[in-house]
Amino acid sequence: MSWKGVFPAFTTKFTANDTLDLALFEKGLQSQLDAGVDGLVLGGSLGEASTLTTQEKETMVKLAIEIAGPVPIVLGIAEGATRDAIKQAALGKSWGVKGLMLLPPMRYKSDDRETLTFFKTVAQSTDLPIMVYNNPVDYKIEVTLDIFEQLLECDNIQAVKESTRDVSNVTRLISRFGDRYKILCGVDTLAMEELLMGADGWVGGLVTAFPRETVAVYRLIKAGMLDEARAIYRWFLPLLELDIHPKLVQYIKLAEAQVGLGSEYVRAPRLTLIGEERERVLKVVKEGIATRPVLPELQFAK
Amino acid sequence: MSWKGVFPAFTTKFTANDTLDLALFEKGLQSQLDAGVDGLVLGGSLGEASTLTTQEKETMVKLAIEIAGPVPIVLGIAEGATRDAIKQAALGKSWGVKGLMLLPPMRYKSDDRETLTFFKTVAQSTDLPIMVYNNPVDYKIEVTLDIFEQLLECDNIQAVKESTRDVSNVTRLISRFGDRYKILCGVDTLAMEELLMGADGWVGGLVTAFPRETVAVYRLIKAGMLDEARAIYRWFLPLLELDIHPKLVQYIKLAEAQVGLGSEYVRAPRLTLIGEERERVLKVVKEGIATRPVLPELQFAK
Amino acid sequence: MSWKGVFPAFTTKFTANDTLDLALFEKGLQSQLDAGVDGLVLGGSLGEASTLTTQEKETMVKLAIEIAGPVPIVLGIAEGATRDAIKQAALGKSWGVKGLMLLPPMRYKSDDRETLTFFKTVAQSTDLPIMVYNNPVDYKIEVTLDIFEQLLECDNIQAVKESTRDVSNVTRLISRFGDRYKILCGVDTLAMEELLMGADGWVGGLVTAFPRETVAVYRLIKAGMLDEARAIYRWFLPLLELDIHPKLVQYIKLAEAQVGLGSEYVRAPRLTLIGEERERVLKVVKEGIATRPVLPELQFAK
Amino acid sequence: MSWKGVFPAFTTKFTANDTLDLALFEKGLQSQLDAGVDGLVLGGSLGEASTLTTQEKETMVKLAIEIAGPVPIVLGIAEGATRDAIKQAALGKSWGVKGLMLLPPMRYKSDDRETLTFFKTVAQSTDLPIMVYNNPVDYKIEVTLDIFEQLLECDNIQAVKESTRDVSNVTRLISRFGDRYKILCGVDTLAMEELLMGADGWVGGLVTAFPRETVAVYRLIKAGMLDEARAIYRWFLPLLELDIHPKLVQYIKLAEAQVGLGSEYVRAPRLTLIGEERERVLKVVKEGIATRPVLPELQFAK
Repeated sequence: MSWKGVFPAFTTKFTANDTLDLALFEKGLQSQLDAGVDGLVLGGSLGEASTLTTQEKETMVKLAIEIAGPVPIVLGIAEGATRDAIKQAALGKSWGVKGLMLLPPMRYKSDDRETLTFFKTVAQSTDLPIMVYNNPVDYKIEVTLDIFEQLLECDNIQAVKESTRDVSNVTRLISRFGDRYKILCGVDTLAMEELLMGADGWVGGLVTAFPRETVAVYRLIKAGMLDEARAIYRWFLPLLELDIHPKLVQYIKLAEAQVGLGSEYVRAPRLTLIGEERERVLKVVKEGIATRPVLPELQFAK
Repeated sequence: MSWKGVFPAFTTKFTANDTLDLALFEKGLQSQLDAGVDGLVLGGSLGEASTLTTQEKETMVKLAIEIAGPVPIVLGIAEGATRDAIKQAALGKSWGVKGLMLLPPMRYKSDDRETLTFFKTVAQSTDLPIMVYNNPVDYKIEVTLDIFEQLLECDNIQAVKESTRDVSNVTRLISRFGDRYKILCGVDTLAMEELLMGADGWVGGLVTAFPRETVAVYRLIKAGMLDEARAIYRWFLPLLELDIHPKLVQYIKLAEAQVGLGSEYVRAPRLTLIGEERERVLKVVKEGIATRPVLPELQFAK
Repeated sequence: MSWKGVFPAFTTKFTANDTLDLALFEKGLQSQLDAGVDGLVLGGSLGEASTLTTQEKETMVKLAIEIAGPVPIVLGIAEGATRDAIKQAALGKSWGVKGLMLLPPMRYKSDDRETLTFFKTVAQSTDLPIMVYNNPVDYKIEVTLDIFEQLLECDNIQAVKESTRDVSNVTRLISRFGDRYKILCGVDTLAMEELLMGADGWVGGLVTAFPRETVAVYRLIKAGMLDEARAIYRWFLPLLELDIHPKLVQYIKLAEAQVGLGSEYVRAPRLTLIGEERERVLKVVKEGIATRPVLPELQFAK
Repeated sequence: MSWKGVFPAFTTKFTANDTLDLALFEKGLQSQLDAGVDGLVLGGSLGEASTLTTQEKETMVKLAIEIAGPVPIVLGIAEGATRDAIKQAALGKSWGVKGLMLLPPMRYKSDDRETLTFFKTVAQSTDLPIMVYNNPVDYKIEVTLDIFEQLLECDNIQAVKESTRDVSNVTRLISRFGDRYKILCGVDTLAMEELLMGADGWVGGLVTAFPRETVAVYRLIKAGMLDEARAIYRWFLPLLELDIHPKLVQYIKLAEAQVGLGSEYVRAPRLTLIGEERERVLKVVKEGIATRPVLPELQFAK
């Protein structure tokens, strides 16, 4: 499992009847593969995981594995009880996923000792490679550098989804752990800054609607073509900002629908956008589409 | 269903093997009834709801109903998907609960329209009386006065668990809705202030360890005996402060264990207190026990 | 100096030419005295202290002392350098003030040791009685209970203006220090709650526009007439909420102008309200005036 | 006036008697010039401006101008009243400064209209070039993009000290205003990220103790030598973090003292570091000094 490159946090496609829209799921997923993504995350917040049944997760994961071939499928785990997280990890393994994106406990602000114990316990229950999702803004619990120090003994904890919003954390992680932990930026609007400072990858949101542009930014940065990368990134930023809003799911699904890669349907308690809010987001999306930059030929290896 | 008086948010008793300790559950619950509580909430945060199975909830609810007799059992509902909340409400009904304590959606910061729709949809799915739990500090979503205005049409939404930490909200609710919504203070350290301003009840935490003192404070306030109430409350405050910490479950369980009404066992990801932290909390609890006030004879009706 | 009762935080009256309007100042101040206030604070935030010259402060203080007779005038001190605070305290003494309202250092988030040293140094430089203004929300620095413990040795530190927004602090202060420190509530919207819990006074904002109602609430609470107090307070709350907004100066001056006790003029960088915002506040003020409650005869001693 | 490159926010040097230490001031300032800084800011927060007299500011500014020759001296303006800011700008002009660093009003959270009016009024009162200091974290007031839009008409508002902590703001400013506003990063720990995204300069803190390293990072980035820049920056980060603490003045002065470019004396209410805190910071400083990187030959133009 190589934690490197662009990993879309893939959305769940619903029909008007609130069931899985597998045809659209396949179409959207194929667009990601065509653009050259390096992995795919299912069952994250963007996937509306908190509203999915286990059966639905299984269906999507198995279909994604079939379509994606060698591109690894990563399963998000976000549970309130340690034993439920362990159970979910085992299910993911049985479904064939190649890695886990493991969140801290849901609905309880564990302290450092509890957070450490939680991650260790789940990691020791599986041989799947794990990316720890560190997002104290949305989930209150910060996985500190000291916790990461103590997690070094878990060989299968291999990567960090860095969503603290503190870009200095990339430098801190590298200074302390070298490349022991791969660092994937988890906040679209900070991706270029963090990749420039040495992050290995990008767990993206808007990539589900704009896969080619996302992959281009990533590869240009890695190729040292900063002027070209900055030009695309400046165009991209108003769209990427849709990723840092509580309604990122609806916003990104609206963008997906506009480019023909998804639909606006969400599952309750989420509601589809209406009125002024929908117009405002739609304006951003349409301006983005209207001014889409010509991408440089990316004739270089990943 | 009368939303009035003291409603303990009851803890779940575990054995050393992480199973339900029903004997201890019964003992603790009986102590609440003996002290004269007016209702009991099961399956709240204090009950570690996010780690319980449906089967465990059913077992506890049915046992509590059997023991409590006429004292109403209220079931907490905290779900991520609207349809799961509906399902849980129906289960509660089938188990025999007399009311629901309904939280906004978990794990998604719904906007006002979505929050309103969520509460309406669940309320319309059941005929059980509902208390809306308004706790924007812990759950990010605020149920605003305007949302409560629009919820007036749901006759079974009858009460508010007021946990905004903004004590002025009691006055605002009364000025706007009179006594249409019963107000129950959901923050132990603000209970006396809010009861003095007109709140109808107290969903308590420390009551599970100190039931008689909690009931005394409530009744003295309602009887206009402020000096007596303040005297107990001043003694009580250091204990009540254990309720406003992320580890309130462990802290309160430590207090329960000290007074013989519970044990310290919690379910992972929570861990039992150790070291300096346990000593610090224990000191507060022991000082509280050592200086327990003599309670006035409460020879007045509820 | 008795730190007890209602202490208006008096506003500075300006003319259209940005000079002191002493006639209006006198009129407003007389209205406070007529209503029975127990003291007056000049040079607070509500007095736009950060924009006043020393000469202007002196003029107002001396005029207020002349008018107020036995009612004590308290001078606000809010300085960035310790030596400037000492200088200001000495000036206040020379002008004849009876007490000081001392803020922590401005424009620097001092730590506990620095905060303690600051208060001690200023207190030791003067024999005037001092009320420490504790407002960590607006000024970031919290004067903790432990700091108050160490300030006990300063006999002239006699009172706390409690503006932490944490109403439990009233109980905490009393439990720890008895009546060594008088407690004056510094947040209009929390005054009734804190007075009920044992606070000694109220440094008020809206009192400058509604002096009689403010004094009535205070006296009714102290007389144990809670129903009457609550009735007035419920009417009052929408007005009192004007006190907890960054533009409290403009909002309160608009209210003063409507009742004929002040003008809307403020000094830059503050600007007079315009447009929708002015209309919104004006509506609150006018509704308050239109529904002004009949006050009970307050035939009891202060 | 060229707002480009490294601008140290220079500290004020005090003697043991709390007077200006002009000899040390000169020594420290010369070290900055020798390292090749592009300008110098006096009278900022790091200069303990809120505790300085006007006479002291004048003395330092005039001495700095004399020493610095063609390197521009910029004066910080942080006042509570608009008219005081205007007065200070005129004084700076008369003393010979080449530019102003203008903060929003102190001690009042002005709204957008007031903030705009404040900046416009001060800018129109002077012909000195102005850098607007945008630091909503420490000063609460955010200078939004819309405010900057309306400030375009003030030709002498030429630069932004970007201290929002939101690194995306660099991209937003460039996308909206091109190079109309020069952007200087005002947060040491974000400097490399923001310079990489197109910022023009760096108003630095630790530069006063480590001038050569700061200038090297800046020039390497501008020369596209990212690996070399990152290597120094990773070494530098633990030191740069001293800049984002409420006690940055004391921390940076401790660093200055260790490298022989300053002393630890501060003016009250600030106190010199003691005990564990001093040891902790000293350890960071000493480790930085012990591992000081060899700087590449910077044989390229600024």
